[in-house]
Amino acid sequence: MTFEPINPPQRLLMGPGPINADPRVLRAMSAQLVGQYDPAMTAYMNETMELYREVFRTRNHATLLVDGTSRAGIESALVSLIEPGDRVLVPVFGRFGHLLREIAERCGAEVHVIETEWGTVFTPEQIAAAIAEVRPKILAIVHGDTSTTLAQPLEEIGALCAANDVIFYTDATASLGGNRFEADAWGVDVATAGLQKCLGGPSGSAPITLSAKAVELVEKRKSIEAGIRVESDAVSASPIRSNYFDLSQILDYWGPKRLNHHTEATTALYGARECARLLVNEGLPEAVERHRVHGAAMATGLSAMGLTLFGDQKHKMNNVVGVEIPDGIDGDGARAAMLGDYGIEIGTSFGPLHGRVWRIGTMGYNARRDTVLLTLAALEQVLRRGGVSVTAGSGTGAALDMYASE
Amino acid sequence: MTFEPINPPQRLLMGPGPINADPRVLRAMSAQLVGQYDPAMTAYMNETMELYREVFRTRNHATLLVDGTSRAGIESALVSLIEPGDRVLVPVFGRFGHLLREIAERCGAEVHVIETEWGTVFTPEQIAAAIAEVRPKILAIVHGDTSTTLAQPLEEIGALCAANDVIFYTDATASLGGNRFEADAWGVDVATAGLQKCLGGPSGSAPITLSAKAVELVEKRKSIEAGIRVESDAVSASPIRSNYFDLSQILDYWGPKRLNHHTEATTALYGARECARLLVNEGLPEAVERHRVHGAAMATGLSAMGLTLFGDQKHKMNNVVGVEIPDGIDGDGARAAMLGDYGIEIGTSFGPLHGRVWRIGTMGYNARRDTVLLTLAALEQVLRRGGVSVTAGSGTGAALDMYASE
Repeated sequence: MTFEPINPPQRLLMGPGPINADPRVLRAMSAQLVGQYDPAMTAYMNETMELYREVFRTRNHATLLVDGTSRAGIESALVSLIEPGDRVLVPVFGRFGHLLREIAERCGAEVHVIETEWGTVFTPEQIAAAIAEVRPKILAIVHGDTSTTLAQPLEEIGALCAANDVIFYTDATASLGGNRFEADAWGVDVATAGLQKCLGGPSGSAPITLSAKAVELVEKRKSIEAGIRVESDAVSASPIRSNYFDLSQILDYWGPKRLNHHTEATTALYGARECARLLVNEGLPEAVERHRVHGAAMATGLSAMGLTLFGDQKHKMNNVVGVEIPDGIDGDGARAAMLGDYGIEIGTSFGPLHGRVWRIGTMGYNARRDTVLLTLAALEQVLRRGGVSVTAGSGTGAALDMYASE
Repeated sequence: MTFEPINPPQRLLMGPGPINADPRVLRAMSAQLVGQYDPAMTAYMNETMELYREVFRTRNHATLLVDGTSRAGIESALVSLIEPGDRVLVPVFGRFGHLLREIAERCGAEVHVIETEWGTVFTPEQIAAAIAEVRPKILAIVHGDTSTTLAQPLEEIGALCAANDVIFYTDATASLGGNRFEADAWGVDVATAGLQKCLGGPSGSAPITLSAKAVELVEKRKSIEAGIRVESDAVSASPIRSNYFDLSQILDYWGPKRLNHHTEATTALYGARECARLLVNEGLPEAVERHRVHGAAMATGLSAMGLTLFGDQKHKMNNVVGVEIPDGIDGDGARAAMLGDYGIEIGTSFGPLHGRVWRIGTMGYNARRDTVLLTLAALEQVLRRGGVSVTAGSGTGAALDMYASE
């Protein structure tokens, strides 16, 4: 059996993520390695911390990477914060809320869930009422849930949490970089993300930030790792249930002690640093505005083709739109035609939306005018060939008009 | 504040790993992404499974990648196998044995440890006696522990485990690809590894293989993830304590169901596939022989310079050698001179060996004649300048003689 070198087909990834990586990120990732404690490496680690403080809009010292995909970031946050038996409140408005619930349950939490219909978000009053009833130690909520394309407004939740002595965790994987996110101004204690959405990189590294309050909670549970512990090191009475995701140990690796933990995934760190560097150079408000413009052009174009958008558009994320699959067309067949004939990937849906809704993204490197217009042009062809009546040029025309009016 | 693009200094990494990545691996990792369920992607995943079967020398269907560093692989194995209260036997002959103990404890196991002095390994009789006494469900043992440079012989341990109905897990991170490793012939149930040692890639992806017996054990504990579960799906009575490391879910993602779990770290997968492809093309026995030759040349050269090798040389891994720091020289100062003046990194040590032993690697892409000779030549200069008496040309001469005699 022989295997050829990697040579993937060229795809334009316009689904809910992963999307095409920015070529500059891939170039950064092709750099040769240095040692784990090389002065060049520790300098890159410190710079990565500084850069992600700007991306998360925080002054939290504890801003770093977890080596794994975005859900590795989520699990590191939850397993480090949750002691078995802790009450955790999880408001669920899409699939990734269910993931937070599942992870919290596996961490041994007593999980309380409130749910709202897919396509809607919670009001601050609903969250306040649930906090009053549950009295949780931790509130865990998704910011932007790609499964429904909506973003939960978080502006008022930090104050609610602070007033009730609740730790406020949010999963910003899908939203960060493409939608306004203000860790400090919103009173977020812990936020996690991934590279494969608006940050324009490949999955595999999870940026995380922790407030001083969250760090204090995590540090209380610290035990130095068995193999490098000395006699005088304390051993925690409530140890974190994971070694790999133990944020107290990971903080010591990223901190001045440089205590050995995992071997940092250097190539992923090069990529994560470049993702943040590009965003910070562009400016976070400018990047959010770019996502707003191209997301709006896509939504406008889809509507103009006669398609119905899914969910409460007032709370749609900038970077992804749900669109109902028109009657009489095979949703997966149309997606296959988009990919096979035009090289463009659009997304299917999970759970209650499966077979009902496509999800189309405009994020990171692909939040561009040409990608929006190409996608609309190809979709028009596929829809018509699938038997859907579409006015020729309606989608691209509406998008072009919108661009002209900006 | 401005940050420059990634531009690391050129280093020759001759420590215990990470080492320089093979440029072909970095090139593979610079390829553009495809979607998570793109036919090209799922084909690459299947090929990666086939390739790692050859690397691990197994016919195990369940041979795949965990997205994280090598200790992510370890934790995924242990947390998926261990139910709280299970007895786990961990024979410890170096730092990474302590890591297995720590992770098993955090998984809720009743851990029993036997220890042997650093620099030695266990006899099969010692392991057999411990199994008879502890009656563990799982034996967890490191194959090659870089902290002491030794490899524990595993040939006879699989039969001991099978006779006592013990699941046999081994961490082959440091050894795989550079030392003989035979998952099937040795009766290994679960083995995990990383890319950053003999496989010649960057840290960040953890190859793993599971026997049918191990898969059965893990599958019994399976629950489909909350957000994608349907009514008819069973929920396990003894759920795995982690979602990210839940091998039953990860197997469904890599299997024909392609059930969504994490978003595969595509770039890391490209790299992991290329690492295995290069090894399989070279031939596993040939790669092991290459590591033997260059490891022997390094050890011969160091001895010829008057240095004392550390540990039982009969059980030294091919790819790393421990060498006692000569009297009168500052170990960390010499390492700094190697790095600062010659761009060559050699390793320090942990725990009882710290300040006493350097560790010098010859592995993966750096298991070459030129790297061995350059390292010996530079070390001669640094030792002499540090006040150690070294016969000029003794190290390189002995290594060249050894190469000539091969």
